[in-house]
Amino acid sequence: MSDETYMKLALEYAEKGCGWVNPNPMVGAVVVKDDRVIGTGYHQRYGELHAERNALASCTEPPQGATLYVTLEPCCHYGKTPPCTDAILKSGVRRVVIGSADPNPLVAGKGIQILRRHGMEVTEGVLREACSKLNEVFFHFIQTKTPFVLMKYAMTMDGKTATHSGKSKWITGEAARRRVQEDRHRYSGVMVGVGTIFADDPLLTCRLPNSRSPVRIICDSRLRMPLSAQVVRTAREIHTIIATCSQDETLARPYRKAGCEVVTLPSKDGHIDLRELMAALGEKEIDSVLLEGGGTLNWSALQSGIVSKVQAYVAPKLFGGADAKSPVEGIGVEGPKKAFRLASPQVMRLGEDVLLESEVLPCSQES
Amino acid sequence: MSDETYMKLALEYAEKGCGWVNPNPMVGAVVVKDDRVIGTGYHQRYGELHAERNALASCTEPPQGATLYVTLEPCCHYGKTPPCTDAILKSGVRRVVIGSADPNPLVAGKGIQILRRHGMEVTEGVLREACSKLNEVFFHFIQTKTPFVLMKYAMTMDGKTATHSGKSKWITGEAARRRVQEDRHRYSGVMVGVGTIFADDPLLTCRLPNSRSPVRIICDSRLRMPLSAQVVRTAREIHTIIATCSQDETLARPYRKAGCEVVTLPSKDGHIDLRELMAALGEKEIDSVLLEGGGTLNWSALQSGIVSKVQAYVAPKLFGGADAKSPVEGIGVEGPKKAFRLASPQVMRLGEDVLLESEVLPCSQES
Repeated sequence: MSDETYMKLALEYAEKGCGWVNPNPMVGAVVVKDDRVIGTGYHQRYGELHAERNALASCTEPPQGATLYVTLEPCCHYGKTPPCTDAILKSGVRRVVIGSADPNPLVAGKGIQILRRHGMEVTEGVLREACSKLNEVFFHFIQTKTPFVLMKYAMTMDGKTATHSGKSKWITGEAARRRVQEDRHRYSGVMVGVGTIFADDPLLTCRLPNSRSPVRIICDSRLRMPLSAQVVRTAREIHTIIATCSQDETLARPYRKAGCEVVTLPSKDGHIDLRELMAALGEKEIDSVLLEGGGTLNWSALQSGIVSKVQAYVAPKLFGGADAKSPVEGIGVEGPKKAFRLASPQVMRLGEDVLLESEVLPCSQES
Repeated sequence: MSDETYMKLALEYAEKGCGWVNPNPMVGAVVVKDDRVIGTGYHQRYGELHAERNALASCTEPPQGATLYVTLEPCCHYGKTPPCTDAILKSGVRRVVIGSADPNPLVAGKGIQILRRHGMEVTEGVLREACSKLNEVFFHFIQTKTPFVLMKYAMTMDGKTATHSGKSKWITGEAARRRVQEDRHRYSGVMVGVGTIFADDPLLTCRLPNSRSPVRIICDSRLRMPLSAQVVRTAREIHTIIATCSQDETLARPYRKAGCEVVTLPSKDGHIDLRELMAALGEKEIDSVLLEGGGTLNWSALQSGIVSKVQAYVAPKLFGGADAKSPVEGIGVEGPKKAFRLASPQVMRLGEDVLLESEVLPCSQES
């Protein structure tokens, strides 16, 4: 069996940590001796053992002379757990095969160096692209200290997110909606504007079995949200952050009393400064935000440069309507050359619907 | 080699007639003897010989005992040419393999019956789906006597066809625009509203080498189109139809003098009655219309039920803009349940862009 085959297996283990390890990366590891898998492991939960230690501990026979496959470069520093490089060197494995290098400045190639310096045979970059893609959130967060923002919307094939009367239930089918639920489990935070609360009064939780719900972040620059909103009424069970520019403590107090966290931020062009909000969320170790905003918040988010990726769920129907809602509103760009540019989308079928997923290209607005 | 393999070859020949045979179907034929292709042919141009005759005429050895593969059931009536069934029976071929049955009420299984009655072995339905899809235009036209209408638009991933300032050049890349040119060759007519003439003053021709341009149809209910418009100035070279509700002959005369055909139609809700227009175009043997309209005309077309298929070219960029243009405007449907329903789209990559193509489902508006 090839290195790629075992790395693929390690990737499958890594994914089991999805939604539970943030802001740590998902990591999987496999120990192979004489072409037999003798141990497997993954990083299961934030604060707990890393994948390498779990894999080594699970070995059904001594790992002497074995090969360790790990999706991400082993750490070499003391964090919540001691360095994995130590455990690997002590284990007796002969060779380490690594997927992607760790972009964490505290590791960044040093883990590999330490292993080599101690005579370990190290192979780098096996399925590097898949291993890096798995941790796009972690890679972004460790380098910027701000969350990876995914702007997600569901629209008709004529680009509408609601009819002219504001109705949007439902645009996409079961499979697409299930996938959004999976992303709510995967992402640390979910963010909407107060307009979405007024329109839909959503709960914004993940309703899949064996899942966690994201922290809910409501952008409400003037604290207009009704106290009867579902997100407020459930704030004691699920962490809820209200981001505002209002300095009025009398307005804020009832939300706090209901269990919400109120974060006051500077304003920018009459809105919450979203870059400041992202910095504040980063400090709270929120590494990723699923932006489920309406057109106004989406436009502000794009303009402020916080969006890393866009997901358009496209349903095979047409609403029409010059006044129907669209996914990105605001003033919009002046001409096509000023457009926000995206990478050519990845395409996925979800039942009747199609998901288009694109990274936002850097320096996307040409001048 | 299997029947499917030879039928695939016949399909390839059929496609060579694309754009030249309307309102006839594209048809290809292959003659096979002892597992060798001894003749090939296709319907090359409206009014000329049918595929079967061309294939038989091209045989490099006598077709006695051979098998004839033909994508569409052979005709058995006198049209512009004598019945193909006669030619087949006289040729000495032993077996006929047919793709799809002819929906033309003048043929409709009768061709197959005649062949069988004369002792010919007939196999039906080989690659039926592909053979029928090739002639979706012909199948529609022969049954309804009105053109097959393809509503086509290019939009950003946030559903915009122009920025808020009305600019739309260009949304998609080279590959997508080339494909639109191919469709202009393929379709008998291209239709826009007068709004598009005001906004872009397009020529609406096919600029590919070795191609033909579609008849241009401009919906201009009150005859407001400037005589300086490119479509008017080139009306002597390329057939141009102006569809209007205006009865004012003084208004119509200058367009006629410039070489345009002015067709006066009843109005419906203040617009041209598009069903009447389609009937009129059908009488002129225009079997297919590429609708390159703006949002207003697209909405009217959808509402009047004339659209068979939708093509959305989606470019990986975002314009934003609450007032930006969208592909289907008008008033729009009231609620999601009233949406025009489409089949799950076929997806095709064209350079950086993605093409979503869906049939409009019948009785698409639920009540």
